[in-house]
Amino acid sequence: MLTIHHLGISQSERIVWLCEELAIPYQLKLYVREPVARLAPPDLRAAHPAGTAPLMTDEGVTIAESAAIMEYILARYGGGRLAYGPEHPQFAQYLYWFHFTNGNLQPHLGRNMVLGRTGVPADHPVMVSARSRVDRALAMLEDRLATGPWLMGADFTAADIMLVFSLTTMRYFMPWDISGYPHILAYLQRVAQRPAYQRAMAKGDPGMALLLS
Amino acid sequence: MLTIHHLGISQSERIVWLCEELAIPYQLKLYVREPVARLAPPDLRAAHPAGTAPLMTDEGVTIAESAAIMEYILARYGGGRLAYGPEHPQFAQYLYWFHFTNGNLQPHLGRNMVLGRTGVPADHPVMVSARSRVDRALAMLEDRLATGPWLMGADFTAADIMLVFSLTTMRYFMPWDISGYPHILAYLQRVAQRPAYQRAMAKGDPGMALLLS
Repeated sequence: MLTIHHLGISQSERIVWLCEELAIPYQLKLYVREPVARLAPPDLRAAHPAGTAPLMTDEGVTIAESAAIMEYILARYGGGRLAYGPEHPQFAQYLYWFHFTNGNLQPHLGRNMVLGRTGVPADHPVMVSARSRVDRALAMLEDRLATGPWLMGADFTAADIMLVFSLTTMRYFMPWDISGYPHILAYLQRVAQRPAYQRAMAKGDPGMALLLS
Repeated sequence: MLTIHHLGISQSERIVWLCEELAIPYQLKLYVREPVARLAPPDLRAAHPAGTAPLMTDEGVTIAESAAIMEYILARYGGGRLAYGPEHPQFAQYLYWFHFTNGNLQPHLGRNMVLGRTGVPADHPVMVSARSRVDRALAMLEDRLATGPWLMGADFTAADIMLVFSLTTMRYFMPWDISGYPHILAYLQRVAQRPAYQRAMAKGDPGMALLLS
């Protein structure tokens, strides 16, 4: 059976959610961040040299990286659900939005997070530039979410599962004001209604307040 | 026909290289960075709201993101070459190494790049931590490349095409000393011998010195 290694308050919530949406059997292994540094604990770091969550173990092989794990689960256990194949007319757009989060939004949030820890003032050109990249990504997202309930319109897909962490739990690490994005806000309210999301967050992060507004 | 939008001295060299390895027909559209800020020029920014390279246009649709474009080309025009499918025993490992670059190494290089522009001293804890993440990723890579000529052993795959930019051209933006990594250095010498890599770099960045050592 698939084992999902989930570090609390982390990107790996995506993988728990994906398994719940697909309703596939999996074993959930929970890890808690170290108290002060908030880093991954030694047992997670021992499970894979990347030292990051998520990790997935299947057939004796353990891998890291959200995108790799999601593509693996979708291809092996998804049965065509939650993803578009090469024959779909929106295949290119699906791939773009699937990779938008970890290729664009999330790395820019991460840059802002570490820059914020340096104490460099907010009006420093590097800070202004880094912030503008996040603003641009969020503006694209706001435009996209104006056109349908999900990133791919009527279809809820793995692209949505990739995205939501960056809009919610990531704000524990890199707070930003979401109030200027009504379509993103409405989207998060739709996410909150999904039973699989509710189950995933209850199992993976039972004590964590969900930043859905 | 596929159009590849390539910004000189950028990640989009990967897509030109992929097309050359697959020997598929494509139209190459070249863009030059603006002189001082070294940002993408307005015509690239007008082609897609992400404002980044690479871009690909096919059947009237333009998308961004290296991973999305590579997966699209592999699925639509690859005919099973350069990638492992779900039936391959190394499928999970292939997906991991395909996503290792843009999910781990490249975002950490990017963080170090912007941190370096703040003027914060190298011994600041944030700088030390950011550098340690790059060191860890490079150590993993050095270990992996000790075991075979390519990331997937005997098979050259799209995972290699994703990786090489971060080890070469990225050093124009975020210089780092490669001399402590003999397996990475030997790997880059193997890359340099590939006719498709030579053709791609000659077409995409004819005036650029290749940082292969």
